[in-house]
Amino acid sequence: MAKKAGALRSRKKSVAGKARPSAELNAVIDDLVLGNRILYVQDVVDSYGHISARHPHHPDRFLMSRARAPGLVVASDIMEFGLDGELIHADERPIYSERFIHSEVYKARPDVHAVVHSHSPTVVPFSVTQVPLRPIRAAFFYPEVPVFDTRTSAGWTNLLISNRSLGQALAQTLGQNAVALMRGHGNVVVAPSLRVVVYRAIYTEANAKLLLQAKMLGGPITYLAPEEAALMEKEQSKQRPGHGHDRTWEMWKQEALARTSSKLR
Amino acid sequence: MAKKAGALRSRKKSVAGKARPSAELNAVIDDLVLGNRILYVQDVVDSYGHISARHPHHPDRFLMSRARAPGLVVASDIMEFGLDGELIHADERPIYSERFIHSEVYKARPDVHAVVHSHSPTVVPFSVTQVPLRPIRAAFFYPEVPVFDTRTSAGWTNLLISNRSLGQALAQTLGQNAVALMRGHGNVVVAPSLRVVVYRAIYTEANAKLLLQAKMLGGPITYLAPEEAALMEKEQSKQRPGHGHDRTWEMWKQEALARTSSKLR
Amino acid sequence: MAKKAGALRSRKKSVAGKARPSAELNAVIDDLVLGNRILYVQDVVDSYGHISARHPHHPDRFLMSRARAPGLVVASDIMEFGLDGELIHADERPIYSERFIHSEVYKARPDVHAVVHSHSPTVVPFSVTQVPLRPIRAAFFYPEVPVFDTRTSAGWTNLLISNRSLGQALAQTLGQNAVALMRGHGNVVVAPSLRVVVYRAIYTEANAKLLLQAKMLGGPITYLAPEEAALMEKEQSKQRPGHGHDRTWEMWKQEALARTSSKLR
Amino acid sequence: MAKKAGALRSRKKSVAGKARPSAELNAVIDDLVLGNRILYVQDVVDSYGHISARHPHHPDRFLMSRARAPGLVVASDIMEFGLDGELIHADERPIYSERFIHSEVYKARPDVHAVVHSHSPTVVPFSVTQVPLRPIRAAFFYPEVPVFDTRTSAGWTNLLISNRSLGQALAQTLGQNAVALMRGHGNVVVAPSLRVVVYRAIYTEANAKLLLQAKMLGGPITYLAPEEAALMEKEQSKQRPGHGHDRTWEMWKQEALARTSSKLR
Repeated sequence: MAKKAGALRSRKKSVAGKARPSAELNAVIDDLVLGNRILYVQDVVDSYGHISARHPHHPDRFLMSRARAPGLVVASDIMEFGLDGELIHADERPIYSERFIHSEVYKARPDVHAVVHSHSPTVVPFSVTQVPLRPIRAAFFYPEVPVFDTRTSAGWTNLLISNRSLGQALAQTLGQNAVALMRGHGNVVVAPSLRVVVYRAIYTEANAKLLLQAKMLGGPITYLAPEEAALMEKEQSKQRPGHGHDRTWEMWKQEALARTSSKLR
Repeated sequence: MAKKAGALRSRKKSVAGKARPSAELNAVIDDLVLGNRILYVQDVVDSYGHISARHPHHPDRFLMSRARAPGLVVASDIMEFGLDGELIHADERPIYSERFIHSEVYKARPDVHAVVHSHSPTVVPFSVTQVPLRPIRAAFFYPEVPVFDTRTSAGWTNLLISNRSLGQALAQTLGQNAVALMRGHGNVVVAPSLRVVVYRAIYTEANAKLLLQAKMLGGPITYLAPEEAALMEKEQSKQRPGHGHDRTWEMWKQEALARTSSKLR
Repeated sequence: MAKKAGALRSRKKSVAGKARPSAELNAVIDDLVLGNRILYVQDVVDSYGHISARHPHHPDRFLMSRARAPGLVVASDIMEFGLDGELIHADERPIYSERFIHSEVYKARPDVHAVVHSHSPTVVPFSVTQVPLRPIRAAFFYPEVPVFDTRTSAGWTNLLISNRSLGQALAQTLGQNAVALMRGHGNVVVAPSLRVVVYRAIYTEANAKLLLQAKMLGGPITYLAPEEAALMEKEQSKQRPGHGHDRTWEMWKQEALARTSSKLR
Repeated sequence: MAKKAGALRSRKKSVAGKARPSAELNAVIDDLVLGNRILYVQDVVDSYGHISARHPHHPDRFLMSRARAPGLVVASDIMEFGLDGELIHADERPIYSERFIHSEVYKARPDVHAVVHSHSPTVVPFSVTQVPLRPIRAAFFYPEVPVFDTRTSAGWTNLLISNRSLGQALAQTLGQNAVALMRGHGNVVVAPSLRVVVYRAIYTEANAKLLLQAKMLGGPITYLAPEEAALMEKEQSKQRPGHGHDRTWEMWKQEALARTSSKLR
């Protein structure tokens, strides 16, 4: 991964010093802005929570908004960060104190190209009870959805993942999974691409609602089997036009533009 | 039914080769587009799920959108399919992989003229527990609402009804009922007409909510009796202007046009 | 009451034959149209359910829309009915088959000047379980909220109150209360005025939600005491500008006009 | 506090007699109008409930709307009250009968500069059961969330805090906490500033939802520890741009202006 990054860097020249962004970078930024708006419109984030994407030319960087409510984010809010959570280009504007969730996950997981941190409302109750968040329909919950507790790693804190050490501990709990819960706080969702992470964040909340309701009905629950989940994930990974996340993105994009500012830039 | 179809075919000439659609066909297409939008606005489908109508002139064909989020469907998205799920007119656009839900139900049930497949959110929990989805108000739940499980018919799958064999197995479980659940996935609702299937899909979700809440209150539940259901269905089947589905359609149509694109074509 | 009605009738001349409506009648019609829209916007009615007002000059008549979804009702939809549910002025348009809910309540309860029948969603579960709908905040639930079951009065029916006999039985169960539930169907709410019946119908649903949630928390519940309820009802009956239903009406009216057609006529 | 108030009064001259309001006062009034709209749009208040702010120049006065639904409040609705709940400037318009909630809290708690009284829907169930409203994420719930019952202080009442004596009793139950529940009625939330009280009122409801759902999942619940809460409150009190309530205010303000009248004055 580092090698490929080097290759890209030499081919594209440095974007440091705010060189003109490539069409590819512009497309990622547009999707990132839309991702912010979509997660807000779909009630996964409220004024808090954030979404990032690994830089398309520099795998050791990621793109994320300045500290702002996701529903209000525009392209000029997007900043570049390094894998220690540091700003690449000097900027006076406030930045998310929990950027270390993102930086440490990108560092630990070369396969991850997009990260969402949210307080997705129906997921939080699973983080404070002993009921595991298991899949009714969300195939990407396998192998498992672990729960991270700052208390275990660092004792009494303000629960924010506001330094590298807490970010590392969270990334370690996440392991090779797609979702980890954060006790009394929220969750982190990761994916190989931005559109997939938006999809997963939304269906993490949806699956939590299904499971909560199944629990209310009572009795044994038939969960999605790992064998079924593997076949579903294989299908999803095909990324065919009109199917999977391509279909949801078209709908969510339209809803986001209708219900937030229609201007991305 | 095949006979009647033949009669219709000879009377109307073939629409293959995209002959000019009749006024009747256009009316069905408009209703089908509205049905897509209504199910989306009423939260029965999200970006997934689909609705189809049997072709008014060719009972061995059905009409359904290309693979697209129902909330975005317009008339030009509507395609014709045969009862093996094959496209009648060559078309490069993506098609729903689960069209076999529709084709096999139309094949097995000549009385059915419209089919909805959805992931209607409060219905799914009933598909993974042992609590039967019984009628509080939904008279069309009789004789029963069976649960189909791909696992029983086909072992480990990705849960999609993406071939004729799975479609047949689902249609067999559905039997002569109006609704069947699909474990961990969704449901299928059928009816003698498009407006009725929209009505049934919406009130399937509504009844699931009522039953979930009654279960939460606890204690014995007084269900709708089969004798009462039969009288209610008889009343509904009269289809008088201003009553039954005629009344709901006027309201849902207005809501759909207000909350999605006002253009059907 | 009959006496006062007679006095009014002689003073105003007959409105039969569609004489020009008085300003007072027009005001009631406007409020009735708004009441329809408000109940729809506040999710008490969907496409079904209806609201009526006793005629301001003829206490032996009531005003109600033709058979139509409440969210779409305009002034020209309002018709006059007699206390046997008969149309006062010949009209070809479809009428609500359950108008007998209204006619029989007006007949039995001279104090009642407005009636709502709805399928208010959180109230229905209380109609099919043995959990009584008791007041957390809804003072008008006293003396009690009885449950009417068509099965007890009339055996197997389609559950609709579509004749005088069923209307009478329902009115008898209602007695001197403000709310009665209808098993597996909905509820009827009555009040001394139209704005109060809208208020009561909305807070009947709200109280049902509070009670359902309190039940989910578990343990003993502190209900509103009858002594407290009596003092609350006394306060509400003062009808001071800016207080009680006057305050809610201003808000609900604005919401209704923003979310349905802004034209009442 | 009284001393500082005296100093301010002499410096600014009296605003009695409706002297031209200072820029600071105008800013508080604008925020107060926005606070009304925000609480309505965020579903903390419906047509009832109110929010007040201590007067920026006269600590022995507070600002609050005339008796009106919060979603409709504009700047000209804002009135000045003294700490006995009396109007400072003669005004014929109706005033909230429960203004004593505010006046007695301002009297008892010099640290409080803003008060919300609401019937926030998920909070009420905790007021009528024996389940304490404990923090999942709401750090400001410490030391505790006490429950006030008019029945204990004053026997049978209409539940309204409509005189000084009931206001005092409520303020006494509130003590040094940020939130107190009012049995069968609602809650009161206080804070050192208007933006913080809006934040707390919204997250009081949010935490109640999380706790209700955690209770529904069952089993032991890991609550926020007092040590964690103290660190979170310390972080929140920094009031840095782009963080904490500054971030939420920007979002909520935009939502409020989009969904209510865009005119504050």
